[in-house]
Amino acid sequence: MNSVAPLFEPKSIALVGAAHTEMRLGGVVLKNLLSFRGRVYPVNPKYDELMGIRSFRNISDIPEPVDLALILRPAPEVPEILREFKGRARCVIVMSSGFAEVGETALQEEIKRIGKEFGFRIVGPNCMGLYNPHQSLDTFFLPKERLQRPKKGNVAVVSQSGAVLSCLLGALRDANAGLSKAIGYGNAVDVAESDLYDYLADDQKTDVVISYIESVDDGRRFISSARQLVSKKPLLILKSGKGTIGQAAAFSHTGRLAGRYEVFRSIVRQAGLREVSDFDEFMDATKALSYQRPLKKSFSDKQMERKTVKRVCIITNGGGSGVLAADECMRQGLDVVGISGEKKARLQHLFPNFFVVNNPVDLTAQVRDEDYVAVLNELVDDYDGFVIIALPNVFGITGNLGNALAEAKKKLRMPLTANIAQSGITRKIISALERAKIPVYPSPERAVRGLNALLH
Amino acid sequence: MNSVAPLFEPKSIALVGAAHTEMRLGGVVLKNLLSFRGRVYPVNPKYDELMGIRSFRNISDIPEPVDLALILRPAPEVPEILREFKGRARCVIVMSSGFAEVGETALQEEIKRIGKEFGFRIVGPNCMGLYNPHQSLDTFFLPKERLQRPKKGNVAVVSQSGAVLSCLLGALRDANAGLSKAIGYGNAVDVAESDLYDYLADDQKTDVVISYIESVDDGRRFISSARQLVSKKPLLILKSGKGTIGQAAAFSHTGRLAGRYEVFRSIVRQAGLREVSDFDEFMDATKALSYQRPLKKSFSDKQMERKTVKRVCIITNGGGSGVLAADECMRQGLDVVGISGEKKARLQHLFPNFFVVNNPVDLTAQVRDEDYVAVLNELVDDYDGFVIIALPNVFGITGNLGNALAEAKKKLRMPLTANIAQSGITRKIISALERAKIPVYPSPERAVRGLNALLH
Repeated sequence: MNSVAPLFEPKSIALVGAAHTEMRLGGVVLKNLLSFRGRVYPVNPKYDELMGIRSFRNISDIPEPVDLALILRPAPEVPEILREFKGRARCVIVMSSGFAEVGETALQEEIKRIGKEFGFRIVGPNCMGLYNPHQSLDTFFLPKERLQRPKKGNVAVVSQSGAVLSCLLGALRDANAGLSKAIGYGNAVDVAESDLYDYLADDQKTDVVISYIESVDDGRRFISSARQLVSKKPLLILKSGKGTIGQAAAFSHTGRLAGRYEVFRSIVRQAGLREVSDFDEFMDATKALSYQRPLKKSFSDKQMERKTVKRVCIITNGGGSGVLAADECMRQGLDVVGISGEKKARLQHLFPNFFVVNNPVDLTAQVRDEDYVAVLNELVDDYDGFVIIALPNVFGITGNLGNALAEAKKKLRMPLTANIAQSGITRKIISALERAKIPVYPSPERAVRGLNALLH
Repeated sequence: MNSVAPLFEPKSIALVGAAHTEMRLGGVVLKNLLSFRGRVYPVNPKYDELMGIRSFRNISDIPEPVDLALILRPAPEVPEILREFKGRARCVIVMSSGFAEVGETALQEEIKRIGKEFGFRIVGPNCMGLYNPHQSLDTFFLPKERLQRPKKGNVAVVSQSGAVLSCLLGALRDANAGLSKAIGYGNAVDVAESDLYDYLADDQKTDVVISYIESVDDGRRFISSARQLVSKKPLLILKSGKGTIGQAAAFSHTGRLAGRYEVFRSIVRQAGLREVSDFDEFMDATKALSYQRPLKKSFSDKQMERKTVKRVCIITNGGGSGVLAADECMRQGLDVVGISGEKKARLQHLFPNFFVVNNPVDLTAQVRDEDYVAVLNELVDDYDGFVIIALPNVFGITGNLGNALAEAKKKLRMPLTANIAQSGITRKIISALERAKIPVYPSPERAVRGLNALLH
């Protein structure tokens, strides 16, 4: 099968269904394509020029075969349009809806056949298109005012649903995380998750792949591509359609059968793939994996051959918050193991006697910024990862806590996530931490889940 | 036992350990007390005036017995101070730390004895104090710049941990929810969750009580007070110290034994009390219960005597988001039951044929604001609650969606939560919805969890 590379890195694009106004979807896509650095060929039978660039009345008028053809015309016209691209396109995205998701399976089968016959890869139909910020390539039919794009970065988003894709992009922005590629592949008549995993495994811009799946057609290929991918970089999977209702909804949404979730889950587990349970866990793990490289060889592995439970240290200035974090560690199978005798004595010597030098370390309301750093310095070699919890409503925590921790992180290089409670200086601290690639979460439990993604 | 009412509604307050500067905790508390409308008597051996009000050198100089005495002096001094209040105070809050949480159990036992002997109720020691915005009463030792207080409202927060209390107050502000009372009761030498439940059960300002617990001393009394409370208003419990690590941490935090969590959980379940699993679920449920009254008698109960599974309708314009919500309903035991034949026909007649008139109802990218309202109007009597999901990045959704749904909610009065995805108009929509007491959540799953709190 041909690679899907021309999809993400085309030199030339045709847009069938281009329009002159952003009041129409074909106008929105054209507008978004104007920033693309390659060649763009709008096709519209009524115009010679659209939005300031030359437009073509027929597909056959386009002066060269294109890497990528976008189709945004009513479903019944799509087969004919595809035929006109014979020998004139390498990849096609059919964004139009009106196929299997509304019962038009014959029409969908037809475009599948045509794609095979003519040898081009088809994304869709009924899909959102793709976005590659590293090439200023944006085929979405949503205007930027309505869906602000995340910044450039290292996360690839692969989503069967356009709706979920747009939610994920919004959440990535919130998480201060950046995007390498995004694609919504809809009914998946041809290009599906496996093709995309194969491509992204070798994509230099992508450090982590997140994949929203409603259904998988070829289970064997899915597992093989996913395993190949995770041998190179992390892959997070959110599978929906877990109950019969969800499965029915997924069917009317993309026209693909979701299959029994239990089967999917057991296959995924056997293959050692990582599935998250909901949207929030998806984004919390994505944020951590986008900011930091996952742990390769852990302290536990090094010290005790067979023991692979990861050791986590919680450093807090609020006792209760530390307890919540410890509870979450237990749920995630992380070991909040105590501090070794020697290190404990050294920390006790360093700190006032009402600091609780245990794990969690409770620096109490009398904490100062530098106490967090002192604990990290002392314990960096004893744990696989750290969770910092700061309630900056006490006097000793200043706006400089973020910079102090950022410095320590740079020097010590351990997996590290944080929960910073609300106060007048929270924003300043979070901003310094996230600039230094320490992901911050709104609760102790979510900070633990973020860390768990790095230690998994 | 005496009521704890004077704690929350005192007419007069003494503060032992008052200071002249906000650089000291005794100064922060005094500053916060200045807005209290009753009488305040600072006590400090060195001053006749502090922050512009008359101060007293000795407790015996205070011209009247006080309803509430606050003590912020080093632990070893506390017993003597308590004795000086003999016959001169009804309730005491010992905010000072240095008791059982650092191993000083004898000292803690001593203040317990003194309290019993002299007949005053003691909150603490090692505690955050309390806040009653309806009386402008604020005894916290955190300045307002460091911990912004939530607005007045109907949520009472009862927390063993001061740290978690401050996080909860921050989260309440984020949730646009208001506070009726807040108290951190620390080591709980006398006043504990049960006393507070008893008081809050009859508090007119409180519609919902949320309770963070690390340990319970008197299980029988706890259950009895909690059941009494939930017969009048919802109570949400977050119990921490679930694992052995968490239990040990809880001990060094408040000096109380957390006990085996499994025992606590089974007692709570038997009593029909509602426990949440983590901080985020705690706040999501609180937001819903603060905005709307929980369902008393459900559609299911009315129609089918014994069937108590709640029926939920999901209305979305993004298929994938609807599927995620349906999955979460399944996890929460909510029934996403299909639309009845007659109603279905009517909606299909109303809508274009590519709208998916199932449950979830998928209004697709072609949705207009009024379509959501049309579905609510048609189905209001068939379901116990509704989840609205809107991805406002399509043309047909306008900034007016919030007002349209707010109008519908006012007329129809059903439990209703929402998830509004990100776009340029999201803020406007959320603000209108939350003014109309429709809680908005950042993911489909969390919107379902919010609704579940109302249907539980």
